[in-house]
Amino acid sequence: MPFPAPNAPSADLLSRLADLLGPAGLLTDRSDVTPFCTDWRALYHGRAAAVLRPATTAELAAAVALCGRDGIAMVPQGGNTSMVGGATPDASGHAIIICLSRMNRVRRIDPVDLTMEVEAGVTLKAAQDAARDAGLMLPLSISSEGSAQIGGVLATNAGGNNTVRYGNARELVLGLEAVLPDGEVFHGLRRLRKDNTGYALRQLFVGSEGTLGIISTAILQLQPQPRAVEAALCAVADATAALALFAAFRAQDPALIQAFEYMSGAGMDLVTTLVPGASLPLSEPAPAYVLVELATPRANADLRTALEEVLGAALEDGTVSDAVIAESEGQRLALWKLREEHAEAQRRAGASVKNDVSVPVSHVPDLIARASAACAALVPGIRPAPFGHIGDGNIHFNLVQPEGMDPAAFLAMDHRIMDAVAEIVRDLDGSFSAEHGVGRLKPYMMPGWRGGAELATMRRIKAAIDPRGVMNPGAIFPPDDGPDKPSTPA
Amino acid sequence: MPFPAPNAPSADLLSRLADLLGPAGLLTDRSDVTPFCTDWRALYHGRAAAVLRPATTAELAAAVALCGRDGIAMVPQGGNTSMVGGATPDASGHAIIICLSRMNRVRRIDPVDLTMEVEAGVTLKAAQDAARDAGLMLPLSISSEGSAQIGGVLATNAGGNNTVRYGNARELVLGLEAVLPDGEVFHGLRRLRKDNTGYALRQLFVGSEGTLGIISTAILQLQPQPRAVEAALCAVADATAALALFAAFRAQDPALIQAFEYMSGAGMDLVTTLVPGASLPLSEPAPAYVLVELATPRANADLRTALEEVLGAALEDGTVSDAVIAESEGQRLALWKLREEHAEAQRRAGASVKNDVSVPVSHVPDLIARASAACAALVPGIRPAPFGHIGDGNIHFNLVQPEGMDPAAFLAMDHRIMDAVAEIVRDLDGSFSAEHGVGRLKPYMMPGWRGGAELATMRRIKAAIDPRGVMNPGAIFPPDDGPDKPSTPA
Repeated sequence: MPFPAPNAPSADLLSRLADLLGPAGLLTDRSDVTPFCTDWRALYHGRAAAVLRPATTAELAAAVALCGRDGIAMVPQGGNTSMVGGATPDASGHAIIICLSRMNRVRRIDPVDLTMEVEAGVTLKAAQDAARDAGLMLPLSISSEGSAQIGGVLATNAGGNNTVRYGNARELVLGLEAVLPDGEVFHGLRRLRKDNTGYALRQLFVGSEGTLGIISTAILQLQPQPRAVEAALCAVADATAALALFAAFRAQDPALIQAFEYMSGAGMDLVTTLVPGASLPLSEPAPAYVLVELATPRANADLRTALEEVLGAALEDGTVSDAVIAESEGQRLALWKLREEHAEAQRRAGASVKNDVSVPVSHVPDLIARASAACAALVPGIRPAPFGHIGDGNIHFNLVQPEGMDPAAFLAMDHRIMDAVAEIVRDLDGSFSAEHGVGRLKPYMMPGWRGGAELATMRRIKAAIDPRGVMNPGAIFPPDDGPDKPSTPA
Repeated sequence: MPFPAPNAPSADLLSRLADLLGPAGLLTDRSDVTPFCTDWRALYHGRAAAVLRPATTAELAAAVALCGRDGIAMVPQGGNTSMVGGATPDASGHAIIICLSRMNRVRRIDPVDLTMEVEAGVTLKAAQDAARDAGLMLPLSISSEGSAQIGGVLATNAGGNNTVRYGNARELVLGLEAVLPDGEVFHGLRRLRKDNTGYALRQLFVGSEGTLGIISTAILQLQPQPRAVEAALCAVADATAALALFAAFRAQDPALIQAFEYMSGAGMDLVTTLVPGASLPLSEPAPAYVLVELATPRANADLRTALEEVLGAALEDGTVSDAVIAESEGQRLALWKLREEHAEAQRRAGASVKNDVSVPVSHVPDLIARASAACAALVPGIRPAPFGHIGDGNIHFNLVQPEGMDPAAFLAMDHRIMDAVAEIVRDLDGSFSAEHGVGRLKPYMMPGWRGGAELATMRRIKAAIDPRGVMNPGAIFPPDDGPDKPSTPA
């Protein structure tokens, strides 16, 4: 299924786009366009002929129709926070970036239906705030929420800290409007909890990473705001103990568990050593930690007792060796800082190799033990610092370079390290991308992991909806002439 | 996108299928085949050349490959409980029915991952029982669960009574294996809570009604078993009051609401009058009723107090005029009997016209008021008896014939009645099929309701995955030569 190479935009096309979108809607000066051409991790440095900034679905649809007719590659871009180069054009300079940030209205919030209608360019943070102002909660939280926009959040099926309770972005989408590669609009902005009328197109667009069209507006399901929140940091011996603690909280009431995060002792050491203002609120360091957060919308729920009930039993039977409960909102945020600063601490520690992997929840202890050993055999002194959403089986299996090693020499090993982790993930029936998506970083893994009928069916769908291959080319699908295997930059 | 007409199976094909499947796996005698050719509601009476009963995915895949190669129409059939003729062949006698009932193993239940792996032919009831025996809960319950099989349940994205808490079937599917029209197998039996590696094919197959392939095995997400359940029947003035009560329970804690069902006074009268053993446990009849069920896995949750808290306030402020709480499991089942016998009571009352519709939750009162008035204008004396999942905005807007009217004369009005209801549903941004699907009964509605880019995209996907149109032809998509508009049988 080789798609024709995308064309370069003609002067005539650019002039039509200028007429359509006006001066605020079209950037062509190199200095304006360049900032859009590098991804957040600086893995990819592309070029683009223009950046379109439509203000409405109608403008977006008309612009896509014009570009599609001319066979121009279109790269949708929201907050440009992809971890896998999902929104960066190639080096040809022929692509047009379509930036959604001017479509940034929260159109409505319905407190009876518990829904909100938001345009693609609304940041996740702004959507959360709007829900909160209405006394409700948008239960999706990721590190990049201040920049990430709803369109991209949905196109990559973002996960994050509250997935353990509320599911991925996918589970929150009731309705979707998307512009197809020919400029036609899929009008699926329904706010129905039940609707069995043909294929679930919204579910196909969620997670399609801009390769089938551009999400323009969505209707998201909200929740009541919690009236009580309790958080605790627990010292545990290993991931097996962390899972036992998870099972204990789940046996009590899974509906209370708002977050359940695992951190390695090595990762925590980096945070408390390298990040100013971060300190361990326990008497001594532990081999591993759990940050658990309970929440409920119920008044007088006595959540603290619920938390202490499980923690008390876990301390007694040795599952947990020590624990601290946040006594104030400030203390709760301080506990979360220890978790959120893991990426920054690893950056300060030198070079690192990241693996956003998932396995069945029950296999997390195996994953951590086996992958740590395999990486240590490859690079003596390597510092495995796994952390993440253990309640979902999603571990960010990051590896920090040995102390004193040349970062470049470490990064020269990146694919050997990633392959070693991947082999174990695969053996444990896991996934090579839990929440970041495929983007331009991981298409080379698709044939090995999702090959056969699965990738063939994805290719058929892609060709059926985008027959010229103009929507975000390079994302998800490996090129026909063999997959690229990009390297981690220093 | 006209598909070629399916071929009649050759003697050679039938002989190969016999070799492949053995005597238990192939039925060709007319007396054996006929029972599979009529749907549960007896709306459709088709014919088939054979019924295949594969015992494994490998047999299923090999059989589909043989049939697909010869361009034979294949009609997947589980428990044959479709409400919309989703699993009945046409009258040509050329189709082959593929019955999944021999693929009936619960393969595994994992208590740490809270997942179960089940073959397509396991009945929903058997799957529920297996989960319960493992101390867990499969949170999906529909009237036909004793016969309906997992494959069909997923292919139609079944809903039911617990959707308000746990979502539709779609939300419970972590992994899926399906046989494609060419006999290739999509191996997606993953039990990962996070996996962003390309298009969500499982979500496309869920709700595709057998038109893209045949679901062979699934991995479903389970929940802990509730430790406490409380149910109450509440008398209310109308759907507005019912919604206010729903909002009050949701404001307390949405995680407790296991079911929230609305029943009209007229419908309840039919049940208590016509169904032996059904009686109203309140002092006097009311204009409408709510059956609310709370549940929690939490020990010592004092659920009864939670129920009484909301009910007490609702009785005080007049939202509820009377209520009874089940004091035993027997009383709880008796309350549910009043709800479950609605269909039977309506059958006994004469002819009725059924509408499985949904609207945004906030619009349910409007729907009931406006549709009741519209139908009364069409047929004086008509008895609207709406009931169903008000917490999901899904009302079974059924209309019983006027007393004494000739049933056939009433049913001659069926499409005028359905059209009148549909017009109001549409005006309220609703759906013409909330949980039953499209099947062969409602394809004629697809162009008007899901037309334009949406239906066109569905057709492109269908053609891409099933280019010869052999998978369950007649379901979902209207024929190119104009849609059929079938009538309700007497």
